[in-house]
Amino acid sequence: MTTDTYISIDTLREQVYAAFAKSGVRPETAQSVTDVIVAGERDNCKSHGIYRIEGCLRSVASGKANPTAVPVLKDGGKAIIEVDAAGGFSCPAYDTGRPTLIERAKELGMASLAIRDALHFSALWYEVEDLARAGLAVISMCPSYAFVAPAGGTTPLFGTNPFAFGYPRKGTHPYVFDFATSVAARGDMEMRRIAGEPIPEGWAIAPDGSPTTDATEGLAGAMLPFGAHKGSAISSMIELMAGAMLGEFMSKEALDFAEGGPLPRHGALIIAFDPARFAHSSGRDPVAEGEVLINAMTDQGARLPSERRYAARETAETHGVLLSETEIMRLEAFAARGLGALDD
Amino acid sequence: MTTDTYISIDTLREQVYAAFAKSGVRPETAQSVTDVIVAGERDNCKSHGIYRIEGCLRSVASGKANPTAVPVLKDGGKAIIEVDAAGGFSCPAYDTGRPTLIERAKELGMASLAIRDALHFSALWYEVEDLARAGLAVISMCPSYAFVAPAGGTTPLFGTNPFAFGYPRKGTHPYVFDFATSVAARGDMEMRRIAGEPIPEGWAIAPDGSPTTDATEGLAGAMLPFGAHKGSAISSMIELMAGAMLGEFMSKEALDFAEGGPLPRHGALIIAFDPARFAHSSGRDPVAEGEVLINAMTDQGARLPSERRYAARETAETHGVLLSETEIMRLEAFAARGLGALDD
Repeated sequence: MTTDTYISIDTLREQVYAAFAKSGVRPETAQSVTDVIVAGERDNCKSHGIYRIEGCLRSVASGKANPTAVPVLKDGGKAIIEVDAAGGFSCPAYDTGRPTLIERAKELGMASLAIRDALHFSALWYEVEDLARAGLAVISMCPSYAFVAPAGGTTPLFGTNPFAFGYPRKGTHPYVFDFATSVAARGDMEMRRIAGEPIPEGWAIAPDGSPTTDATEGLAGAMLPFGAHKGSAISSMIELMAGAMLGEFMSKEALDFAEGGPLPRHGALIIAFDPARFAHSSGRDPVAEGEVLINAMTDQGARLPSERRYAARETAETHGVLLSETEIMRLEAFAARGLGALDD
Repeated sequence: MTTDTYISIDTLREQVYAAFAKSGVRPETAQSVTDVIVAGERDNCKSHGIYRIEGCLRSVASGKANPTAVPVLKDGGKAIIEVDAAGGFSCPAYDTGRPTLIERAKELGMASLAIRDALHFSALWYEVEDLARAGLAVISMCPSYAFVAPAGGTTPLFGTNPFAFGYPRKGTHPYVFDFATSVAARGDMEMRRIAGEPIPEGWAIAPDGSPTTDATEGLAGAMLPFGAHKGSAISSMIELMAGAMLGEFMSKEALDFAEGGPLPRHGALIIAFDPARFAHSSGRDPVAEGEVLINAMTDQGARLPSERRYAARETAETHGVLLSETEIMRLEAFAARGLGALDD
């Protein structure tokens, strides 16, 4: 019988950091990656929590992620700020570009951060929330691995391409959403396959293009975009904007390059807007106006997109994070021996 | 029995222009509105075609649209270009801001056009296509009338909020999509109601929040966003970015203000990106990269979003536009007497 145990966020942070620091990851990078993993676990967003340690360390062990890469900021003083992750993780690239992005968005009214050549491990909500706390409205997007067929097609071409948005609020957490543009998550399909369970209609098509509820067939065929042709259009936009437009990999190239390793290699696009500048000549307060909409949503019982994450965060900040015995053993092994624990 | 007749695009343009010019609309505004209506009819996008003449002229007749308003450009030399439509139509406001938007996007890498206080009559695809032809990637969005409930809610709050995107192509029409963030168009629900036909499940909810297939109940209740909570999130983003952030009306205010008149009064946000600048340091050609994606879509039989419009355009440019006898009579009456033909 296993027992779940609460561990404090501080302890979690120390252990995650140790896992990376003991694996030859440069301290600043270990810190950036730790921040995202701890935030994911704290918010009960397990897809970016401690289970990711293994994938990140495998990317290091296999030589796919450069653990000592130093992100290079390229700033021409205009609205595009570029950071070359140089084959390292995306999180330190974001942290490197962040101060200039905020400063430039406030100076010009808007600015973009283009991240190049990153082993992509980031929760987009983490970044848009962070920038919304700095008073900015933010759109963020990136390609991933080509697992999704365009609407009307039969062959994987788009990634599960996440799209995220953040808007500042006063006195409470920012308004944040972050979703995959596929109907389902790849991991959910994998879990059904392992459990021998069918997948719901509309998640995927078989290799011959026909609808399927068989998880194995769906994984061999193609996943489907959310919202039919409209979601498919959004996903195509993400390929074009965060792939083609940056001159970085689109999802098909990322998959071909990395052969489905734990982290895809590609770019990312973050667009930041200063609501104070956009609203200025109207005489209105754009954040107070946002509250009118958000309150009208909650007043009628609609759930806000990040409500569950923020609730989980509150619990974690009070009681710590609840981990299973297996999770704790694994975390402690990584914290003690880094990469060395991969083959336990 | 009525007969459909082809009329040339040039004749159509003259007649539509005359309808506005004879209604006291200033020449530049008449030209801008005519351009959009003729493009809509030409592309068989009837929702922005000649049937809109009546609604536009009614907005003038009722005093809701100011026919002589001169759009005012406000440019602080940074990334936000503002045009105050001053209570006139949105089309001349776009035309007023367009040259500065293009110039600034190419100079800084990106720029936004914020349109203020417009009687909104524009097809977003018209604007994003136009800017994509100038070599820019473009996102455009605006609120509308609050007819749509947020996911999980029961009360209209969001508009059918269109979202559009354009990306340049070489040697062919730009890649363009433009869709409402509601499942269905309001007009399609109205048509089912008039015909006494049911609406499909998922289009709308009744006033008590329960699912309905009754068009009258759906119109009295609320329309639903596409793609469940994900489409709802996109729609909330449009309210926040193109409403709250600009300090302009959101869809609820627009509906309260105009009481459902033919054109809502609000702002619009167009964000333009220069792919050449974004891709520069990668050494790749962002337009050629886009072709890789677009060709991979068509190769597998996926339809491109604007394919039908471009095909209709080709037909119209060769044969003219096919109009019914009723449409031609109405068009001729407006061309001859402007507002005076409203009560025929």
